[in-house]
Parts: sequence; structure tokens; C-alpha cells
Amino acid sequence: MESMIVAVDVMGGDNAPVEPIKGAIEALKQNDNLVIHLVGTESVIREVLDTIPDANTYKNRYSIVATTEVIATAESPTVAISKKKNSSLVVAMKEVKTKDAQAMVSAGNSGAILVGGQVLVGRLPGVKRAPLAPLIPTEKGPALLIDCGANLDARPELLVQFAEMGSIYMEKVMKVDRPRVAIVNVGAEEEKGNKLVKETFPLLKALDDINFIGSIEARDIPSGYADVIVTEAFVGNVILKMYEGVGKTFFKLLKEAFTANLKSKLGAGLALPVLKEKLKDFDVTRYGGAPMLGLNGLVVKTHGSATAKEFTTSILQCITFRDQNIKELIRENLSKGEN
Amino acid sequence: MESMIVAVDVMGGDNAPVEPIKGAIEALKQNDNLVIHLVGTESVIREVLDTIPDANTYKNRYSIVATTEVIATAESPTVAISKKKNSSLVVAMKEVKTKDAQAMVSAGNSGAILVGGQVLVGRLPGVKRAPLAPLIPTEKGPALLIDCGANLDARPELLVQFAEMGSIYMEKVMKVDRPRVAIVNVGAEEEKGNKLVKETFPLLKALDDINFIGSIEARDIPSGYADVIVTEAFVGNVILKMYEGVGKTFFKLLKEAFTANLKSKLGAGLALPVLKEKLKDFDVTRYGGAPMLGLNGLVVKTHGSATAKEFTTSILQCITFRDQNIKELIRENLSKGEN
Repeated sequence: MESMIVAVDVMGGDNAPVEPIKGAIEALKQNDNLVIHLVGTESVIREVLDTIPDANTYKNRYSIVATTEVIATAESPTVAISKKKNSSLVVAMKEVKTKDAQAMVSAGNSGAILVGGQVLVGRLPGVKRAPLAPLIPTEKGPALLIDCGANLDARPELLVQFAEMGSIYMEKVMKVDRPRVAIVNVGAEEEKGNKLVKETFPLLKALDDINFIGSIEARDIPSGYADVIVTEAFVGNVILKMYEGVGKTFFKLLKEAFTANLKSKLGAGLALPVLKEKLKDFDVTRYGGAPMLGLNGLVVKTHGSATAKEFTTSILQCITFRDQNIKELIRENLSKGEN
Repeated sequence: MESMIVAVDVMGGDNAPVEPIKGAIEALKQNDNLVIHLVGTESVIREVLDTIPDANTYKNRYSIVATTEVIATAESPTVAISKKKNSSLVVAMKEVKTKDAQAMVSAGNSGAILVGGQVLVGRLPGVKRAPLAPLIPTEKGPALLIDCGANLDARPELLVQFAEMGSIYMEKVMKVDRPRVAIVNVGAEEEKGNKLVKETFPLLKALDDINFIGSIEARDIPSGYADVIVTEAFVGNVILKMYEGVGKTFFKLLKEAFTANLKSKLGAGLALPVLKEKLKDFDVTRYGGAPMLGLNGLVVKTHGSATAKEFTTSILQCITFRDQNIKELIRENLSKGEN
């Protein structure tokens, strides 16, 4: 297999720089074809590398790309991208643009990643906005939630393109036959919804290149009612984070119950192996990062609170994305749809 | 205790008429001071009553208010309210208006309930919109999610009033000291958000009659980060239904795990009592119905998919709401805030 260079922004996210670096080294361990550029403050990176026992083993497959600035979570994305030219995020993006890397992974400022992706890496011809589209677990397998990015206050024509790109992704990359595309709504009926949904609904209905099944209520998302869940980014973000929040609380209550008394501890011991197996399928972080769709290169955003494990998954995913050639698939299929 | 008359729209919701009628009879059983008007098609009501063994025991405390029309889920709320004057929903609302009943409960068309509440029952002076505000479970007890109604495409000044009404509710009715009020956002920082949130944030910050703690990410809702969760109705609806959907899937996986093999069955037998106790606290339907705040009378909306148990809870809640006199509390405190 051809080797692949992934630029990792090690200064982004709540757990930077330790977790991204640990995750990167683990990814190198798991895949021999991987080369990683650790993009960030050199002294900090060296310090962290010193604490990772086997980091040295992989030193031929990683290099440090030294930067001097960091984009903070609270910064204005547009300002940060244009001013902080020597930040880890901007430099990692530029590596994708110049083909010094074939992909970049960051857990940093979402807005800056979204702006940077469109401004620094650039959109494919015909693509109006590049959405962030994470896979989410459902009872029937993964579904694509599109958009969870920073395209707040979206317009109907953007949602229509998100639906098309999402459908291409699920069909070509995830191999789902005729993916069911639905729009998030407050009721199942066509008449329901806010202005954006009401305006978008007939446009989606009129498309003949997607399998549009109508509205989806949030309640039906986890059960797997649709393969591509179309919504504007604010609502997408709420859906993604409700998965995370409700899941976390359930696990907490489960743990409390299982340690409450001797009887429940005994019960937990017996039931836990199969329970863990079951619940693993429903961990929203298991799919790692979310790719931005419709760009000229591969940009993967992972959770702000990502740990080493999620960085590893996100980095390894880049290889899958590259092999599946999402970029080409979207370019071919979107332009076909426009003729 | 003074008796209370509750008008129940027995034709509304997915499980009408059986579940609302069963729930009503059960409520009569549980509270001697309750009188119920079963509002709906007479022949249908009589048929259902015949199947409930002990319904006859309470016949002195219920009466049938015969109607001839039903508002369907898919109907346009405004049209339905103005045209179907002899529908169960409209007649039950009018009973509240004319004081023939002190409250009404319905699981019917949400939009019609929201429009009917404002048009037929009417708003308190100074109230711009009446939101639907369900209690949702969190790790630290119930929180108020405001708005989950049909006020789609809300404006900043409406969200501000929702925040005030929600704060009054949590302080006076739920006895929470200085309730923490937060606005749903895609990040914790003040700079983040869509247009609506960005415009609303400074207005909430400027209010000195509420304890505004800033943005809340959806992830932090279940952990109990805020007591009053302010958002526009579309997002509120998504939050409420994600609770329901993710919860349902978790219970399903739990059940599958617990019945997977002999060992897990044995474990389940031991752990289940305490587990049930723990998870009970986190059932989004346990609080029954959601009151519309800011109306001239008491209108309670319960889930479209409510079962008899939830109708009983919602009907009994009316007594609590009446005793706590929410209407007066909002009138006094809101006008104070406006001086």
C-alpha cells in the first residue's frame, strides 16, 4: 500500500498537546504506511514525546513541523485564519493545500477549521459550502449527520447540496444501497417545520438523484430511520451533543447502579461482558472524526474533547477516506447531478 | 381541598381515545377532589368506558362533553382552530376560557394547542408568546426546557421573556433558589452561535432579574448544568426528542444484553432492582405534561404518544399547577420586571 502523510494539529482541542501526540504515535504503531507531521510548538512536542516510552521507535515516520502560534477555542474563526499564519491549524491546512500532506486532523476551534477548510484548502467546483458530516451510531448501523459544522443560518440551497453530498458519501463510501435521506423536523408531516425546513422540503422532494423519505423527528434518529440526516449546523450540533450527553449520563447511572450493593455488583460481574459489547456499538465517539465534504483535500475534525484513542481513529480514518477517494466521488456525482 | 375540574381532550394523540380515557379514570381513582370532563365523540367515549371495569365507580365525578369533530395531527393549526369549532380540542379550550373547567389536557396537534391556547384562552397582559415548557430529567433533578412549542422562527425578545417566565417557574413552583438560566448554543463562548443566539445573549446578560449563566452546549444538559434551558422551539423539540430517542435505544440495548445468555440473565436478575430505581429518575415522560406558560388559564400538553399513565400524571399535575398558582406568579413577577 502507498504511504500517506497526515498533518496533525497537536495544539488544538481540550487535551492538547498530550492526547493528539499520543494518538498520533499510536496510529503510527497501528499502520506501517502512515507518516505523520506533528504540527505545533516544537519544545512542547519534544517534551511530550519524551514521556511516550516507545515514541522513538517510530521516529523515522514522524517529523515536527514547528509553528509559533495557537488558535484558541474562543477566537473569531475568520480573524484567526487570516492573522495567525503561523498557527498549527493554518500550517496543517496549508500542508494539505500544497500536497505536503494528504490530510489534516484537528480537534481545534471548529469555526476556524470550517473557515480554513474553505479558504485555505478550497472547495471543489460547484460546491457552495463544505459541511462537516460525522457518522453517528443507530440501531441499524452508522448514519450520516450533515451538517454539524459552522455553516450556521443555512439556506435551503445549501441543505439541498448537503443532502446530495451525504447521499453520495453513504452510497459510495459506506456502501449503503439507495441511502434514505431525511430532513430533521418537529413532526412527520410535510406541513410542519420552521421556515428553512418548509422551504427545503419541496426542493429535496423534487431531486431525483436521492432517495428522499421526508421528515425525521429527532426521536427516530437513534433507531436508524434514515441513513442521511439533513439539518442545519446548529441543530446538527445539538443532535450530536445530545447523543454524547444522554449517553454519558446513562453510563453514569448504570455504573452507580452496578456498584450500589453486593447483589448488583455480583449481577454486574455476570452481565457486564455482553453489556459492554452491546453498548460499544452505540458510542458516538467510535467513528472518530468527521470529514468536511466537498473540499479540494482531506480535512478531518475530531471532538474538542477527543482523547488519544479518538485521535488514533481519526488519523487512521484518513487512510480509508483517501482509499475511497471521496473527493473524486463527490466531484463526479455532484456535477452529474447538476447537468 | 377544593375540587378541580379538568377538561380532557380524549380524541387527541396517537393513542386516543382509549389511553386518555383510561388515564382520566385512573386520575379520578387517585384524587377524590378531581372532576373530569371527557371531551370527545360520545359514542366512542361510552364504548371505551364500557371496557374499563371500575369506570362506573367514578361516574359522579366525570361527565361527557359531546363533540362532533376531531383535529388531526397533520392539519394546519390556525385553520383547524378557526374552522373546527366543535372539535374536542377547541371545546376543551373554551371550557378553560369560560371557567367551566380550571384546566385542559390534550395530547393532540401541538400546533393547534399552541394556537388555541393563545387565541381561545388568551395570554396574560404583557406576555408576547406563550411557550410550552416541559420539565426534563437531569442528574441534578428536573430542569425546564423552554420553548418546545410551536413558536418556530422565534425572535430575541421572545426568548428573553421565555427566560424570565422559566426562571419564575423554577423559582416559585419548583423552589429552586436563584435558578441558573442558560441559552442553548454550539459552544460555551459568548462569540459563538447563530444570529438568534448572538442577538439574544446580550439581552439576557443585561437582565438583572434572572441568574443568567451564559451558553449551554447540548452535551451539558443531561448533567444538570442549568435549571432553565432557553432555546427556540425547533431546537427545544429536537432536545426533548433526542432524550426520548437515545433513552429508548439504550433501554433496548440493555434489554438485549440482559437476555443474551444465561449468565447475563442471571446478572440482570441481581442488578435489575437497583438499576430500575436509578433509571426511573431519567425517564423523560415521568413529569407528564408540559404547561403553556403565560396564559389566562391552564393548558397542559402531553406527548403525542402518551399512554394512560402519562395522562394520569398530566391530569394530576393540573392540581399542583393550580395550587401553585403559576398564572398569578407570572403576572406579578413579569410586570414587576417590566417596570
